[in-house]
Amino acid sequence: MKEISKLLNYRPDIKVVDATLRDGGLVNDFYFSEEFVKALYLANLRAGVDYMEFGYKADRELFDENKFGKCKFCDDEFIRSVVGENNTDLKIAIMADVGRCRYKQDIIERSESPIDLIRVATYLHTIPTAVDMIEDSKKKGYEVSCNIMAISNAREGDLQAALDILGQSPVDVFYIVDSFGSLYPEQIQRLAEMFCEFAEKYGKKVGIHAHNNQQLAFANTIEAVGDGVDWLDATYCGMGRGAGNCAMELLLSFLKNPKYNVYPVIKFIEDQMLPLKEQGVVWGYDLQYMMTGILNRHPRSAIAFTQEKRSDYTEFYKEIIALD
Amino acid sequence: MKEISKLLNYRPDIKVVDATLRDGGLVNDFYFSEEFVKALYLANLRAGVDYMEFGYKADRELFDENKFGKCKFCDDEFIRSVVGENNTDLKIAIMADVGRCRYKQDIIERSESPIDLIRVATYLHTIPTAVDMIEDSKKKGYEVSCNIMAISNAREGDLQAALDILGQSPVDVFYIVDSFGSLYPEQIQRLAEMFCEFAEKYGKKVGIHAHNNQQLAFANTIEAVGDGVDWLDATYCGMGRGAGNCAMELLLSFLKNPKYNVYPVIKFIEDQMLPLKEQGVVWGYDLQYMMTGILNRHPRSAIAFTQEKRSDYTEFYKEIIALD
Repeated sequence: MKEISKLLNYRPDIKVVDATLRDGGLVNDFYFSEEFVKALYLANLRAGVDYMEFGYKADRELFDENKFGKCKFCDDEFIRSVVGENNTDLKIAIMADVGRCRYKQDIIERSESPIDLIRVATYLHTIPTAVDMIEDSKKKGYEVSCNIMAISNAREGDLQAALDILGQSPVDVFYIVDSFGSLYPEQIQRLAEMFCEFAEKYGKKVGIHAHNNQQLAFANTIEAVGDGVDWLDATYCGMGRGAGNCAMELLLSFLKNPKYNVYPVIKFIEDQMLPLKEQGVVWGYDLQYMMTGILNRHPRSAIAFTQEKRSDYTEFYKEIIALD
Repeated sequence: MKEISKLLNYRPDIKVVDATLRDGGLVNDFYFSEEFVKALYLANLRAGVDYMEFGYKADRELFDENKFGKCKFCDDEFIRSVVGENNTDLKIAIMADVGRCRYKQDIIERSESPIDLIRVATYLHTIPTAVDMIEDSKKKGYEVSCNIMAISNAREGDLQAALDILGQSPVDVFYIVDSFGSLYPEQIQRLAEMFCEFAEKYGKKVGIHAHNNQQLAFANTIEAVGDGVDWLDATYCGMGRGAGNCAMELLLSFLKNPKYNVYPVIKFIEDQMLPLKEQGVVWGYDLQYMMTGILNRHPRSAIAFTQEKRSDYTEFYKEIIALD
């Protein structure tokens, strides 16, 4: 049982990362209005959020600029149009996917960029390229985290080997990523123990990015807090791909660090998230996401089900069971 | 850390209780169609659910029969019109609230009734009447459970005293009830330990009834499973007062007992719950319920906010903070 004294206290090392524009952008192809992005920046500032992720640094050769909003590419000028010189305590992050980012050219020196943190996202089998990206970003002066995606179907030995390689790289934070929303708190506890062991050995921090396929994104995140995980991803209203993420409003209400304040989050939701929902942008727990979560599958079939406005859950269940 | 062998196995003692008509009835004044109730009975049978709660045995002097559906009063004839002689493994339950049920007259001998289980719901300060109800139902031949409500603001000593009194009564099951949806899994773990200690001493079982104000109803229920709690309340689509309950579809997907089957639950949701939602029946997690949950308050103000179709979350926040 976790110590009650630790649960009632707080760790000053906790960092909350707002991933609304990035993971939420996967729902609306990153078409956020300028007003939305600016209001979100101000809300994060007031709420005491530590990092705000603006989106992806996506490769323009792979992704057509005319088919996505600005948060897909996160040009420095775009970020600067929102944050100016950003003389605040809120740091700016972007995500760089292995194989989908021309990091050598598109990520410039930190001294010339408004960005503070590069979040390298990788699968287990692309760890060597992830390490190259980490070294490149580190040399340019950035803080760097590494998200190891889709670990719910990774073998323990492979994961340990990856953490050992990453431990020897200059990365600052290892992230536990439950891409398919299939993990239960008891599994998060075990993964956190493994990640923290390597983090301690190599002087790194550990983070978590959860998905809500089984209504466990918040529960898994606070489980991880109790297990020593310090970097916590959340999004306003849980906005994110498929079933979405850990809700910022729940997370800030739970954390006892005095610097956090939930009221600006509530206000932003009322002012900006409700209109977004009224426009028909859809995310969040629903049965199709539960099913892919339980089966430990990528949510793409469930996302298609949602986009086609289907509600024949039983047919969908038969379809995906047949693929098993 | 919980033992992995226990987590991958299952306890044959687990009992799943469907509380859709009872807790869900609080959302629509118990106006369920006959077709809905019959389909739910069949779905529970096929899903391997152990108990189906039909509603309350409410006092007709206190509650106007013309203002509620049949599940508010649960006459034996009504139940029999659905289940016949119920020659099945699915047992029938009703809830009897202390102070709102004429138990001596309205609960007849079990041998003459289709009901198997009386669920006595009590606050801490009405335990003596609860014990009288328990004894009355036991004498009439029923299985009896006791739900101690609103324990999130009970003092530990009071709770222990209550469990000691109940332990000496003929009740079969003690229920942990998170009425306000304010408890975190780490608190459930501590409560489960306390409840299980008294249960072991007196030869009782322990159950849990969770609410979803902080998206933790399912997480708290599976935390309790890991802690040795055997009786688990759930409702289809989480239908229940305010933010609702632990979702049956999530719970049956999680449990490894071979007798459970989630497909009939998915089918019932498609056939019966979606139409209910389309009719405008509203429940489930939303910010107003999160706020009362965090503040450990009865959800009545949040329910009023929902019924008035308000969405001014910030005003609501100010209103309830002012009352603190």
